[in-house]
Amino acid sequence: MAVLGLGVMGGSLARAVSSLGVAERVIGWSPESTERDGALTTGAVNLAAASWREAVADVDLVVLAMPLRATIEIIDGLADALPAHATLTDVTSLKEPIGRAAADVGLADRFVGAHPMAGAETSGFWASRPDLYEAATVWIVPGGATESRIASVERLWSTVGAKARRIEAGAHDRLMAIASHLPQLASNALAHTIEGAGVARSQLGPGGRDMTRLAASSPEMWSHLLEHASPELIAGLRALASASEAVADQLEAGDVEAVDRLMRRTRAWQGAS
Amino acid sequence: MAVLGLGVMGGSLARAVSSLGVAERVIGWSPESTERDGALTTGAVNLAAASWREAVADVDLVVLAMPLRATIEIIDGLADALPAHATLTDVTSLKEPIGRAAADVGLADRFVGAHPMAGAETSGFWASRPDLYEAATVWIVPGGATESRIASVERLWSTVGAKARRIEAGAHDRLMAIASHLPQLASNALAHTIEGAGVARSQLGPGGRDMTRLAASSPEMWSHLLEHASPELIAGLRALASASEAVADQLEAGDVEAVDRLMRRTRAWQGAS
Repeated sequence: MAVLGLGVMGGSLARAVSSLGVAERVIGWSPESTERDGALTTGAVNLAAASWREAVADVDLVVLAMPLRATIEIIDGLADALPAHATLTDVTSLKEPIGRAAADVGLADRFVGAHPMAGAETSGFWASRPDLYEAATVWIVPGGATESRIASVERLWSTVGAKARRIEAGAHDRLMAIASHLPQLASNALAHTIEGAGVARSQLGPGGRDMTRLAASSPEMWSHLLEHASPELIAGLRALASASEAVADQLEAGDVEAVDRLMRRTRAWQGAS
Repeated sequence: MAVLGLGVMGGSLARAVSSLGVAERVIGWSPESTERDGALTTGAVNLAAASWREAVADVDLVVLAMPLRATIEIIDGLADALPAHATLTDVTSLKEPIGRAAADVGLADRFVGAHPMAGAETSGFWASRPDLYEAATVWIVPGGATESRIASVERLWSTVGAKARRIEAGAHDRLMAIASHLPQLASNALAHTIEGAGVARSQLGPGGRDMTRLAASSPEMWSHLLEHASPELIAGLRALASASEAVADQLEAGDVEAVDRLMRRTRAWQGAS
C-alpha cells in the first residue's frame, strides 16, 4: 500500500500498519522531505518515495492522507498513474467533494471514501502515533465502488483498531457540519471572545481549557474544508448565536430557571448517548 | 479541621488531607447520609458528624465545600457556632457574595475565601478523588482576614498539591465570568444547538465530545452561581453570539480568508499561554 501525506493522519496510519506487519510493503510520500525522512527512520514506511507517482506505481491500495484541496488536486492527476487493479481511498472529513473529484476522472468504481473521526490539534509527522485510530469511528462511503474494494478499505481500518461504519456521502457531510465543523468554529468563536475580554489561556480552569483546545487546530486544513461550508453549518452557527443571546437575555432578566432548564436538558442529552 | 459538604470538592479535599496525614483530625459533615457514610468508610474523615454544628464545635479550620447558596446559608448560622479561634474558608467560584455574607455576620476577620480551579461534571462523594487538586490553581481572597489566617488556608491548599494565588474578590469574580462561567454556558448553548440539529453525542468526534463535556455539569450548582451573573458574563455571551454570527456571515459570503484569520489568531492566543 501507499500512503500519500505523512502528517498526523497518514503518519499514524503508516505507523499502525507497519507496527502490525499487516501490509507486505508500506510506501510513503509527503511533499515535506522532513516527513519522508521521519517516516523512514522510525520504520513507519518501508520506502519513502521521491514523488507520489513513484509511490503509487505498483501498489494495491492508495490512501490519500492530505487536506481536502490537496487530495482533490492529486486525484485529478491520479487517473492515469494508478495501477488498474488498485483501490483508492482518503481520510478527508467531507465526502461529497472528494467523491465528485474521483467520479470526474473516471475513478468512481475504484474510490472508497473514508473519514476516521480522530486527529490532533498538532500537525505533522511528529504528532502522529500508532494508536491514533484505536476505537475511533471511521465513516466508509462506498459510492460507486465494488463490494470487494469497499471491504478491503474496511479491513484496513478494522486492523488498526477503528470501527468502520458505512454512510452515504451527503448524509455524512450533513452530520459532520454539526458533529465536527460546528464544534470547531464554536471553539474559535469562544477563544476569540475570551481573548477580547483580555483573559489569557493560562487563566482558564480545566473546563475553559477543554473548550478552547480546538482553537489551536490547523487553519490550513480547515480553510480548505470551509470552502465547502454547508447550509447546515451556517444554520448551526446562527442557532448557536441565538442560544448564546437567549442565555444572556435570561441572565439579564434574572430568569435563572430558564438557564436551569437549558442545563437539565443538555445534561440529559449528554447522558443519553 | 472540619469539612462541611462531602461532594466532589469537599470529599476530594478530605481524602487528600487524610491520606497525607497532615491534620490531627478531619471531621466531615454532609446533608446526605450516604456521603457521610462513604467518607467514613473510605477513611476520608475520622468522624462523620451528625450536624454541622457538632462538626465545627472544636476545630481550628472550617472548610465550607457546598454550592454558593448553601454556603451563604450556613455562614448566616455559623457566627455563634464557630469557636472564636477558628478560621473559616470556602471553595465557591464567586467570592464577592460570600465575602459579603461573612462580613454581614461579623466574620470578616476570620474568613479567607478560596476557589480551587478544579472539579468534575459528575457530582457527589463517589466522584471525589484525592488528587483532584494536584497542580490546580487555587485563588485565595484575603478580604479582611489576618495574615496568619490567610497563610494557614494557603498552606492547606499547597499541602494537597495546589498552587495558591492571592486575588481581590471583585477581580476574581470578573475573571471567572470569562474564564469559567462563559465556557460553561457556551458548552450548554452548543449542546443545545447540536441536539436541535438532531445529532446525538455518540455521533460526535473527540473534538465535539470535548466541547460538550461541560454540558453535563450540575444544574443545581450553576443555578446558584448564575443568580449572581455579572455584566461581564452577559457581555461575554453576547460577544460569543456576535462572533458566531460573524463566522456564519463569512462562510455564507464565501469569505474563507476571514475565517482563516480568526483561526490563526485564536491559535496564536492559545499557543501564547
